[in-house]
Amino acid sequence: MRRTAVKLSDGRELIYFDEEGAARRSAHDRRGLAPGETRQGTMRHDPLTNQWVTVAGHRQSRIHLPVAALCPLCPSSEEHLSEIPESEYQVAVFENRFPSFLVAEAGADLVGEPHWNAEVPAHGRCEVVAYTADHDGSVASLDPGRMRLVMSAWIDRVRELSTLPGIRYVFVFENRGAEVGVTLHHPHGQIYAYPFVPDAVVENLRTAKSYRARSGGSLLDAVVDRECEDGRRVIVVNEYWVAFVPFAARWPYEVQIHPIAHRISLDELTDSEQASFAELFPRLVRALDSLFDSPFPYMAGWTQAPTQGSTEELADSRLFLRLISNRRAADKLKYLASSESLMGAYVNDISPETAAEQIRRAWGETT
Amino acid sequence: MRRTAVKLSDGRELIYFDEEGAARRSAHDRRGLAPGETRQGTMRHDPLTNQWVTVAGHRQSRIHLPVAALCPLCPSSEEHLSEIPESEYQVAVFENRFPSFLVAEAGADLVGEPHWNAEVPAHGRCEVVAYTADHDGSVASLDPGRMRLVMSAWIDRVRELSTLPGIRYVFVFENRGAEVGVTLHHPHGQIYAYPFVPDAVVENLRTAKSYRARSGGSLLDAVVDRECEDGRRVIVVNEYWVAFVPFAARWPYEVQIHPIAHRISLDELTDSEQASFAELFPRLVRALDSLFDSPFPYMAGWTQAPTQGSTEELADSRLFLRLISNRRAADKLKYLASSESLMGAYVNDISPETAAEQIRRAWGETT
Repeated sequence: MRRTAVKLSDGRELIYFDEEGAARRSAHDRRGLAPGETRQGTMRHDPLTNQWVTVAGHRQSRIHLPVAALCPLCPSSEEHLSEIPESEYQVAVFENRFPSFLVAEAGADLVGEPHWNAEVPAHGRCEVVAYTADHDGSVASLDPGRMRLVMSAWIDRVRELSTLPGIRYVFVFENRGAEVGVTLHHPHGQIYAYPFVPDAVVENLRTAKSYRARSGGSLLDAVVDRECEDGRRVIVVNEYWVAFVPFAARWPYEVQIHPIAHRISLDELTDSEQASFAELFPRLVRALDSLFDSPFPYMAGWTQAPTQGSTEELADSRLFLRLISNRRAADKLKYLASSESLMGAYVNDISPETAAEQIRRAWGETT
Repeated sequence: MRRTAVKLSDGRELIYFDEEGAARRSAHDRRGLAPGETRQGTMRHDPLTNQWVTVAGHRQSRIHLPVAALCPLCPSSEEHLSEIPESEYQVAVFENRFPSFLVAEAGADLVGEPHWNAEVPAHGRCEVVAYTADHDGSVASLDPGRMRLVMSAWIDRVRELSTLPGIRYVFVFENRGAEVGVTLHHPHGQIYAYPFVPDAVVENLRTAKSYRARSGGSLLDAVVDRECEDGRRVIVVNEYWVAFVPFAARWPYEVQIHPIAHRISLDELTDSEQASFAELFPRLVRALDSLFDSPFPYMAGWTQAPTQGSTEELADSRLFLRLISNRRAADKLKYLASSESLMGAYVNDISPETAAEQIRRAWGETT
């Protein structure tokens, strides 16, 4: 793998990840963007939930579902200068031009009880991971070599972003499909380096701590063991990974992918684990696409250990991918309405065993 | 107000709420529905979050956006027999035919640490509140008298449902607009009697408890006081109610409506408070409708005290309405994508002060 870091004309960083033997990456960004136009939002503390909410008004103007000729993730050409100056590329990562979080003003200390109406700069970093130069591709069309290259980019970014001052959590994720609100169809994922530990992780760690106090063991280890033993919701299991629909799935289609060995972050994955995932994940997405014979909308993201986590938090952390979809039938979407959005009480219209059976069958028919 | 309780042909309860002088409600349900066809779902415990998730597979087949001639909430006629046997009505409440929760098998004890793969009957009750016989109406078109009648229905139901065995929380809410997933356009709200305290309330009570330990006071009292003092996000305040956009709003448009006096549940509202809200709320919805000159999609629901709450929980509870919308521009919706849906980290594209200014101006131009 070869890594080439360059700067875009406004100073944002762009990193190419290429297999050995690829062309050298030396093209310049000819757009002449003004430096420093990228704006930082703010974060506000919500006293009712003790959470930070980010306000990023500058994101309202971002481009919405452009055709390939205007796509910022396609390679640049004489006719169209994109975010990626090269005329072709394999995997490219760059700082988001419309970020929710930005390293600009120094981050505030978010630990401890905030004062009323606490508002601080939205310190952090948002990156875009372009998976391929092919505008019409998707994870489903990535060969294992390319998927592996994407994973190399993830691991590189997790390592680097974890060392930035004030970063508490690195979240690697992908939104796929207009149904979940993507604004760019070009196949890509994103990385958010948050200045706080996000609420879902705080909640998992709280539950894991309580479990450890009762049983002495790791909650996530136990969940993986139980799902493997039970087997009814397992889609596929091999030497390195298990994919299952969780027992208490909140979404009509929800899949968790866990390494069999206990890993706490992406950069702990061995070569064999990476190679195995690089085969497994694109095939799973092809299986999901076959469920309704159309690109399956999803949100997928890695849960891993907080950066700067305490010894206890690190012990209770365990890496896994969670993929959720709001599709509940060929022509129907699941909406999170008042019960879910206001009360946090989820109602799922599809039983997890039914969803697992459908996906398992699709997996078997997919290569 | 006159209350008339009847049974539908399958045994479900229907209650008419009428102003004095309305016709007597004696029509029979002539559909001959088989008793007991209403099915109960199950609830599963999620070990990662310590929450209950409801699985209600029977809801997949519910009717989707029917025209008025097929609408189950329109009055019955010779051509169309609906859920409401009368040929006209004012406000009607009935048990949902496709409920997420049902009183059938006895509820399980949900307190304490559940065992692995805990699955219990989804004990509870789901009711539909039809606001008017007018299929094309909405809260915006309700006169204060009718809104008051809706409130009487809410209070009646909160009182009765709170006494059902095994009910821990009564949630009164409305989903409005296809944008938030409503399956019936006829103006109506819903009531869920949950067998657990929903997660959002658990979280608020946890935060309130911590606040009380530090300051000795009520967190929600303090929030209302601070928002009134600050004033920048207040839309309207009168003797009985204040409506504001919260400081750390998660949604592009989000309004909280709090009684000025400390109330912990809907049935504590005085006549004057009810009369004032009955004027305020329809006008607020008219103002929201005027923002983009189209019916404003929203989810609105009352936070109140848990039934069977501890002394401490009751002390930390306070009644308020929270209204959130996923509209962020005339032609754009806010989607909760991976950051929100997987991590619980919200990014809001509109500053709360901007939203408040827009709504305040619209309120001023609305009668």
